[in-house]
Amino acid sequence: MITVRIETPLHPFQMYIIKHLDRVCDYAGLKKFLQFSSTVVSSPLIALYGDDVILSCTFPPKPNSGKQRVTINWQRNNPSGLGRVIHSYYYQRDQLDLQDEAYRNRTQIFPEEVRKGNASLKLMRVRPEDEGSYTCYVGNEQDHVEHSTDLVVSAPYKEPRLTFDLSSHTDHVLLIFTTSGGYPAAAVRWQNETGSDITGESNTIQSTDRKGLFEIRSEMVVSAVGIVNYTFVLDHGVLQQRITRPVSVASSK
Amino acid sequence: MITVRIETPLHPFQMYIIKHLDRVCDYAGLKKFLQFSSTVVSSPLIALYGDDVILSCTFPPKPNSGKQRVTINWQRNNPSGLGRVIHSYYYQRDQLDLQDEAYRNRTQIFPEEVRKGNASLKLMRVRPEDEGSYTCYVGNEQDHVEHSTDLVVSAPYKEPRLTFDLSSHTDHVLLIFTTSGGYPAAAVRWQNETGSDITGESNTIQSTDRKGLFEIRSEMVVSAVGIVNYTFVLDHGVLQQRITRPVSVASSK
Repeated sequence: MITVRIETPLHPFQMYIIKHLDRVCDYAGLKKFLQFSSTVVSSPLIALYGDDVILSCTFPPKPNSGKQRVTINWQRNNPSGLGRVIHSYYYQRDQLDLQDEAYRNRTQIFPEEVRKGNASLKLMRVRPEDEGSYTCYVGNEQDHVEHSTDLVVSAPYKEPRLTFDLSSHTDHVLLIFTTSGGYPAAAVRWQNETGSDITGESNTIQSTDRKGLFEIRSEMVVSAVGIVNYTFVLDHGVLQQRITRPVSVASSK
Repeated sequence: MITVRIETPLHPFQMYIIKHLDRVCDYAGLKKFLQFSSTVVSSPLIALYGDDVILSCTFPPKPNSGKQRVTINWQRNNPSGLGRVIHSYYYQRDQLDLQDEAYRNRTQIFPEEVRKGNASLKLMRVRPEDEGSYTCYVGNEQDHVEHSTDLVVSAPYKEPRLTFDLSSHTDHVLLIFTTSGGYPAAAVRWQNETGSDITGESNTIQSTDRKGLFEIRSEMVVSAVGIVNYTFVLDHGVLQQRITRPVSVASSK
């Protein structure tokens, strides 16, 4: 039996580990031996691209007031002050006429939970554009509460492909690392064989695909004389994914 | 609070995951939030190179017989039938005159545990030569029990270095993946861009260093005309470590 209960602000990587202990166990075929439950109360909330996520919002239920008076309004906060409507609920049902187009068919609240003081929102198939601050408003005729959550979206980078391009130079080789599918942008650097940073000699382009995920192409021109040893390093700040790839070129030219 | 309790035979990789949940939590700075306890009853026992490991041996304690009569003898089993003495204990103290040289200063039993029926052996700084079957003999004048444990040693492979060797051919490039520090030997294969197995075109040498750990060198000759896409794959059977490295060579020659 595995139980994880944490109610302290955590680093995003800690959040990721907590979340993925579950997957690691599943992958290892341990799920059948283990029970897994987690309660994480923290900010910001890290969601993996494509996953569903629960934006938590609880309030003290009022036994005296009829539940029909409860209004729930989830908004996306905007620096300009004008929020976008993510999900509304009143008169005991979803009210989605004003829902922002980008969230259509991707949100859900749990009516049977509302009477227990739980106005949490399920946001499905998370994507980079969802990153930002969300506020839950819960009110009745007497008073109201508001609760904000920051949502951070992340996706790990795929195994990079290394290309040796021999075509453009006679006495030089172009090393090109390419990867994709990550979010947010990564920190890319190159080291020479003594560990010195030679990123300045490289050229890295990070662009987004139509899903909003990053594609990275990092190039280094290497002299094809003797033996040169370089290391490509990619760091994903949110997931603390680190990709370190040592590479050498040997030539007698 | 994390509790892991497993009493079913597990795949070595499952054992590894159980063992390393603890380390993952520690690495993520979660140790302070979590309690971690594990009870794993399984065979074989996987130990990581350099780690300490407990070879478990328990027996029903006899309140009637004085503890001074207990003899504990840990042996390394040998196909020839002649065991090697790993650790002996009688007359209430360690008796190490006949201890095998290879185990000197690397074993420990727990005298205060013996009266509770626990004759487990701590083996320190595990190395490849330790791999094998161990038997714990516990006896007194009336009767005795024996219990055998298979110990499997493992070490993950380091990030491979990829070398492009341009020196030996004019219209060919030699791709060389090298890695080290792993145990036991790994399964290495190559795939072309359609995923077909082209391991037959490669040449892989696995040798051991002075610690008994494996060094791997895998070579593939690639035609430097047009673009060729290959993938190097290394599988560690015990730890289920998989290293997949796609690589391309582009040339206009």
